[in-house]
Amino acid sequence: MALYKMLLAYDGTEYQGWQTQKHGDTVQARLIHALSKMAKTPVQVTAAGRTDAGVHALGQCVHFALEHEIPAKGILMGANSILPDDIRVLSVHPAPKGFHARYSACSKTYHFRIDRSLVPLPHQCRFSVHYPHNLSIKLLQEAAILINGEHDFVAFRASSCSAKTTLRRIYVSQWIETGSELVYEVKGSGFLHHMIRNIVGTLLEIGREKRPISSICNLLKEGKRSQAGPTAAAKGLHLVKVDYP
Amino acid sequence: MALYKMLLAYDGTEYQGWQTQKHGDTVQARLIHALSKMAKTPVQVTAAGRTDAGVHALGQCVHFALEHEIPAKGILMGANSILPDDIRVLSVHPAPKGFHARYSACSKTYHFRIDRSLVPLPHQCRFSVHYPHNLSIKLLQEAAILINGEHDFVAFRASSCSAKTTLRRIYVSQWIETGSELVYEVKGSGFLHHMIRNIVGTLLEIGREKRPISSICNLLKEGKRSQAGPTAAAKGLHLVKVDYP
Repeated sequence: MALYKMLLAYDGTEYQGWQTQKHGDTVQARLIHALSKMAKTPVQVTAAGRTDAGVHALGQCVHFALEHEIPAKGILMGANSILPDDIRVLSVHPAPKGFHARYSACSKTYHFRIDRSLVPLPHQCRFSVHYPHNLSIKLLQEAAILINGEHDFVAFRASSCSAKTTLRRIYVSQWIETGSELVYEVKGSGFLHHMIRNIVGTLLEIGREKRPISSICNLLKEGKRSQAGPTAAAKGLHLVKVDYP
Repeated sequence: MALYKMLLAYDGTEYQGWQTQKHGDTVQARLIHALSKMAKTPVQVTAAGRTDAGVHALGQCVHFALEHEIPAKGILMGANSILPDDIRVLSVHPAPKGFHARYSACSKTYHFRIDRSLVPLPHQCRFSVHYPHNLSIKLLQEAAILINGEHDFVAFRASSCSAKTTLRRIYVSQWIETGSELVYEVKGSGFLHHMIRNIVGTLLEIGREKRPISSICNLLKEGKRSQAGPTAAAKGLHLVKVDYP
């Protein structure tokens, strides 16, 4: 068996997320279809992050094994010729023995994009959430810093989340302002279901002075989901990078 | 009657172009629907440029008249609340008497975007044409310069084009390179049907050394459509700006 590591970018707008489902179009199903067609045998693929419906990726990482080796460049060209335009294979490389896209990952970086212009441009509307409200960047930054470090993020997980432990380590949590766009960048050991979107929903309420900065500390300490902010819309979220040792 | 000038941006991917048709969704039909709903009476709208199916706009200009005046800001907010996300009203202003979006325009600027990266990012694929071939920027620029000035562009018009005169004046014709993207910028008094896409298709053949630079001179002199290059795909074309005196 030949093991491969693949970098993938997708516009998640038209998909029911990464993971194959009984009903609905998914990125995983599309990739399985493309690789299986090329290899002329069923191929299984595993991703670093199982992105939700509507979430995008610029650097999703995937691994898969092929019974008969195919040159990496051939896989890239072949898969891209079968995949739809909104899913693109960026690179393919042979992976070291035992490599696992999800379990070998040491960190993942996500961006959440917010468009603050009065009227959002149609060219951006698939990839950012329109949020034309007054926001204090200072409050947003101060609150974002409190997310850094190891915490129990149980207050920020979806009710459907089945993770065994809710402890996660966050290495980067910051806002980046570029023109009328505001990007929340977060890099962590891993993330619970809806965790980033719930953090963003809470941070935005702080930026609008609808809740105090200290509420972040209380949420991390007391772990009450009911006290956190709303879940920000999926279309603003992008899986940007997955790091491996 | 109150006359208005409106600036419009749209992602043309899902539309059969600007102009209302018997069948198919169009930008004009969507705008007429939104304005008529707001004004509670049928409203007619006229655009500076009747963009083709799949062509985008960042600064389309439109005029319309309302029997009963509505504040400009109210029109902007109201129309955007009715229009789909891929069509956005950027601004609305009262227009001077006699203003006509198409006939008052003194020039229009279009961009044609080409993505030269090995694998085009899904985030850009709706708005640029993937063209990973080797291109000589020097040849592209030299050929583009020959388009400047007043010429008979009959060799570059679509067979369906019904314009009475095929003379047009071009003020700017140049290529702009930004990272892996190459943009053809053209500003002119007006354009024939498919004219820009046919010019781009011809210039790209020159950039690939498949035809000599001098073929531009011959096309402008002899006017033979059969001698020009292919029509470049609609999705790369953007109406960027319309100028008025």
